[in-house]
Amino acid sequence: MVLIPSTMTASVLRGVKDLIVEERPVPVPAADEVLIRVHSVGVCGSDVHYFQHGRIGPYVVESPLVLGHEASGTIVAVGADVDESRVGRRVAIEPQRPCRVCEFCREGAYNLCPKMEFYATPPIDGAFCEYVLIQDDFAYDVPDSISDHAAALMEPLSVGIAAAQKGGIEVGNTVLIAGGGPIGILTGQVARAFGATDVVVADINAGRRALAAGYGLRVVDPAVDSTEQLGAHVFVDASGATPAILNGIRSTRAGGTVVLVGSADEFPLSVPEIAMRELSVTGTFRYTNTWPIARSLLISGLVEVDSLVTHEYGIEQVEDALVGEGAGNSLKRMVLPGVRTVENPHMRGTA
Amino acid sequence: MVLIPSTMTASVLRGVKDLIVEERPVPVPAADEVLIRVHSVGVCGSDVHYFQHGRIGPYVVESPLVLGHEASGTIVAVGADVDESRVGRRVAIEPQRPCRVCEFCREGAYNLCPKMEFYATPPIDGAFCEYVLIQDDFAYDVPDSISDHAAALMEPLSVGIAAAQKGGIEVGNTVLIAGGGPIGILTGQVARAFGATDVVVADINAGRRALAAGYGLRVVDPAVDSTEQLGAHVFVDASGATPAILNGIRSTRAGGTVVLVGSADEFPLSVPEIAMRELSVTGTFRYTNTWPIARSLLISGLVEVDSLVTHEYGIEQVEDALVGEGAGNSLKRMVLPGVRTVENPHMRGTA
Amino acid sequence: MVLIPSTMTASVLRGVKDLIVEERPVPVPAADEVLIRVHSVGVCGSDVHYFQHGRIGPYVVESPLVLGHEASGTIVAVGADVDESRVGRRVAIEPQRPCRVCEFCREGAYNLCPKMEFYATPPIDGAFCEYVLIQDDFAYDVPDSISDHAAALMEPLSVGIAAAQKGGIEVGNTVLIAGGGPIGILTGQVARAFGATDVVVADINAGRRALAAGYGLRVVDPAVDSTEQLGAHVFVDASGATPAILNGIRSTRAGGTVVLVGSADEFPLSVPEIAMRELSVTGTFRYTNTWPIARSLLISGLVEVDSLVTHEYGIEQVEDALVGEGAGNSLKRMVLPGVRTVENPHMRGTA
Amino acid sequence: MVLIPSTMTASVLRGVKDLIVEERPVPVPAADEVLIRVHSVGVCGSDVHYFQHGRIGPYVVESPLVLGHEASGTIVAVGADVDESRVGRRVAIEPQRPCRVCEFCREGAYNLCPKMEFYATPPIDGAFCEYVLIQDDFAYDVPDSISDHAAALMEPLSVGIAAAQKGGIEVGNTVLIAGGGPIGILTGQVARAFGATDVVVADINAGRRALAAGYGLRVVDPAVDSTEQLGAHVFVDASGATPAILNGIRSTRAGGTVVLVGSADEFPLSVPEIAMRELSVTGTFRYTNTWPIARSLLISGLVEVDSLVTHEYGIEQVEDALVGEGAGNSLKRMVLPGVRTVENPHMRGTA
Repeated sequence: MVLIPSTMTASVLRGVKDLIVEERPVPVPAADEVLIRVHSVGVCGSDVHYFQHGRIGPYVVESPLVLGHEASGTIVAVGADVDESRVGRRVAIEPQRPCRVCEFCREGAYNLCPKMEFYATPPIDGAFCEYVLIQDDFAYDVPDSISDHAAALMEPLSVGIAAAQKGGIEVGNTVLIAGGGPIGILTGQVARAFGATDVVVADINAGRRALAAGYGLRVVDPAVDSTEQLGAHVFVDASGATPAILNGIRSTRAGGTVVLVGSADEFPLSVPEIAMRELSVTGTFRYTNTWPIARSLLISGLVEVDSLVTHEYGIEQVEDALVGEGAGNSLKRMVLPGVRTVENPHMRGTA
Repeated sequence: MVLIPSTMTASVLRGVKDLIVEERPVPVPAADEVLIRVHSVGVCGSDVHYFQHGRIGPYVVESPLVLGHEASGTIVAVGADVDESRVGRRVAIEPQRPCRVCEFCREGAYNLCPKMEFYATPPIDGAFCEYVLIQDDFAYDVPDSISDHAAALMEPLSVGIAAAQKGGIEVGNTVLIAGGGPIGILTGQVARAFGATDVVVADINAGRRALAAGYGLRVVDPAVDSTEQLGAHVFVDASGATPAILNGIRSTRAGGTVVLVGSADEFPLSVPEIAMRELSVTGTFRYTNTWPIARSLLISGLVEVDSLVTHEYGIEQVEDALVGEGAGNSLKRMVLPGVRTVENPHMRGTA
Repeated sequence: MVLIPSTMTASVLRGVKDLIVEERPVPVPAADEVLIRVHSVGVCGSDVHYFQHGRIGPYVVESPLVLGHEASGTIVAVGADVDESRVGRRVAIEPQRPCRVCEFCREGAYNLCPKMEFYATPPIDGAFCEYVLIQDDFAYDVPDSISDHAAALMEPLSVGIAAAQKGGIEVGNTVLIAGGGPIGILTGQVARAFGATDVVVADINAGRRALAAGYGLRVVDPAVDSTEQLGAHVFVDASGATPAILNGIRSTRAGGTVVLVGSADEFPLSVPEIAMRELSVTGTFRYTNTWPIARSLLISGLVEVDSLVTHEYGIEQVEDALVGEGAGNSLKRMVLPGVRTVENPHMRGTA
Repeated sequence: MVLIPSTMTASVLRGVKDLIVEERPVPVPAADEVLIRVHSVGVCGSDVHYFQHGRIGPYVVESPLVLGHEASGTIVAVGADVDESRVGRRVAIEPQRPCRVCEFCREGAYNLCPKMEFYATPPIDGAFCEYVLIQDDFAYDVPDSISDHAAALMEPLSVGIAAAQKGGIEVGNTVLIAGGGPIGILTGQVARAFGATDVVVADINAGRRALAAGYGLRVVDPAVDSTEQLGAHVFVDASGATPAILNGIRSTRAGGTVVLVGSADEFPLSVPEIAMRELSVTGTFRYTNTWPIARSLLISGLVEVDSLVTHEYGIEQVEDALVGEGAGNSLKRMVLPGVRTVENPHMRGTA
């Protein structure tokens, strides 16, 4: 039997750059929910952005908010309608709660649900805390071969899967990815798992190129080497940089697809370029039904995520995890909510 | 037996706003070609643009060029490999000649063939002349129920079909079309044939709205009525106007598709709008395999094109057809290359 | 305010050919449900089959069962989580309750949900009774232009929509349908709404051919006229007869699709025919997300269903509705659960 | 400069089990063709079948026929319209000649072209001879990293690619393949390249299971282990055995696809099974546009084919290659048309 305390420690964002650690009641699962003791939570660029700016586009932090949405843990209690046998399971968390009755949910596009409640998106709390709730079917069992960190990183891996799906990557394709950060590297690995036989990552940062190359991805420095003759079937922007997007569009073959994943603002789209070469420019918003795929990719070894982790932090070190030393240059920083502080957060270097 | 003269009359563009009528040799069909006596040729905005500016984007008129690519006629001679029984057939002309061996041709996307030769696109002559050549399989038999004008207008109808295909219009869809000119009206009719149950044409010009309404299409004045709550599954821009494109994007439901058909330049594309609502922005370049569909739509009555014709001109009146009185406000102006002059070109009004 | 009685009249199947009328408690809506006073219920072949055989394949009537699943009515009460404003709405009922959490439900293929509860499929009661429950989002508002009968017939219309979707019917297609009963006629109308320009219904029964022809469908007598040269893009079997299926497969063009909707058992499938002509043979099981489409098709007039209704019966005449005089030759027989008996059930003839 | 002799040695099938070696004129390339000196030709089951029975279904050997269609070689001469620089290139041959003008060719489905001329299919000669012709675009350059045998085996590899494409194999899928011969093993490798994370080969022959397992494929003995709980997304029959097909259909999950590649005759298809689980049963006929994909898969190492080769034969040993010792149990037997006889054909064992 699992003993569940009545309170837990949570890292709470109260406003711009105002993060505190506080005790909160442990939540109680509704009938269709499970209560999870959180093991590992990845830091995402969106967490950093909320910390620094208090908002992302239309989403504004107006009341205290727990950040963190890349999470794994162990089920410690279940709601009335959930099978008791789930208690004790190690799980990866899909951090969203769709309404399940709107047209989007019913058509299988629940990421577009207008009533979506998503971890760490105001006003829904995330996972930088000891215990979280999620509906039973969004907590996915993971086998022992998948580590706690890897289970948490099924979230950014899902971003890569969604990008590859949206791009319609097919066997034999040439795929160009702008941006060699975690999303770029994960998308590159996923593209290869989809059968792409030439996957090229473009990044102006030599360190990131070296990291991407370490995953067997071909790398180019867009400041030096043009990709315009590449004829990519699919271009994925994971950089958010306008020059990279424009270069990627020019590098895409006629009939190809451009998928915008990075957080860009707006850019000038040439209509003749789109029309005369029949490109499709699209983007992804989160993901649907990707966790089972992410799990299969990790189990089969087609994708590897553990080596992305460069730092570990305790619940009292979330600010360091978000913006501490080397944050801009590291790959994945993980928060361990069950640990107060980690003495030496740095695991392996990207400097 | 058909008597074929050795020379023919052709309307030739020698430079910007420099159009002459001259006698040219009647061409001789290659082994896989047919020779067609031209009946009827529609005037397209691209013809007008070449006349006025001598170029369209990368295509520049550098030597004398015959304009006109919306054409019908009768086969009067065939090449060595073509069945003699084709002589005498009334045909609609698909005005393109793909290479048939590149990857695009072999995959069925021959419109993207980099070696395409297309009527009235420099340096390939078009159909404002008495006789033209085309490969046998690009000359489509038409039954008596399809008029000469209608057979010619299977070309702009194909533009509408390609737009509907690219948009993925499905039964029950709401479709918004910006621009109530011939392409907008044809796309609207096609959208309905695809099963769209709410087809809305937006145009700031009251005359064009009235014309579109005459085809049973719902019309709105974007200067007065917002379409932002429409939730269109597919938006087709046939206006080329940036405000119309931006308005159309806002009027498209999450997961929907934007098809750019109009001749716009560039516009600022909001990445969050594309990504968070997972829109796809794409365009069409000409068409592939649409003539059989166009013919079926005309025969079945699902689409009607004859009433689009407002004016008829002879081969010596091509300049009037292009830029003469009322050209900006008319719908379809047709050139009859076998006629020298038409006394009263105006058939029915759009004023 | 709506007064709801505590009991209602229901027609209950107790065993093979053992149907009684009994009083039952009016059910109480759960939090996400609405209570509907039933107006009109169509008789389906499956209802007849349960009455006569007590089972359909793996589904066995082991306890008393209310038949009927093609239903419309008016909402008279709502569960705790449903907006009160829904009381009073005329609705068409999608008679299924998926689990919403399995992989099929989450992917938008909820018809394949292994936990589906479906009206009139043992042990779930159907709609031959005065009041029924359904989850709120499966009760679709209908405008005044859609009659009670038409609202009920959105169910068989959905079968036709699902067949057309599964067949991938596209604009300009030739579609062959075997069987000129209600499903064949509805599928034919739907095929045309999808843009099919040649829709052929094959039936050996002259009366059914005449009825189908009345809907503008082309008809053939397969005993007299071969369809093997038809080259159908899509063949839909709505007959359940092996010779019709085999003939339909031969009549399908290379690359075409065969959709099995009729209740056939098994038939010998020629592998060379499937492989060398790359046919796809598939079937449909109920439908997903078709009610909004059905409603749009009825409102737009692209499909018409009222004229299918040939007979009306009261709740005490369900056995007549199922197997009474002329049942085999009629089109649609409707049960009005709010009426005890209809004096002259026959509305218009098919004899 | 390449010296081309005027005659060549060819292995010619004159009738059932009547194979001779004869001198024939070296063919002369037409304008769009290349002349290839053949290096390596794989033996296919269809070659064996023509040898033993003189026919395959509708295709009957009515005049002397050269067998062999899995071929590689070097271009030694080109037709008038082909770039001279192609002389000297090592190429893989796609052994088909579509008409390029019919609706199938123009839609990119040229494998369904009714005028297709295919190597070693009566009356078109194949590649068990020293020189062959093919149109320029069907001779694919291969890099040094692809051996002559591997270049030839891009043909059966294409069969596997076509099966995977037709099955719509997606990342994360479970795929069941019946039959552990060359096609089964190649399809298994291709399925993995498409992202399938559980690929299972079922064969009753222990030797074939061991071979398949050597390629990292999971194997089962269908006589011992049921696969009915497998829930395959895609089932590919490469066995041609009715029990294997029926078992495979039962092992496919709802909504899944069955692809028939093996040479079966006919089998009883259960309509309720197809309809209630919405399976799609389809097949493949040859392939379209697969050579570039096959080449990419070989270069990237995602698929390996050299190790399939068990025997090599000279042009005078074609009968041994077809039906000699151990033929039934070997994997791939290759004919080297430029060699008279190979002393010890056996390269590595499958016994």
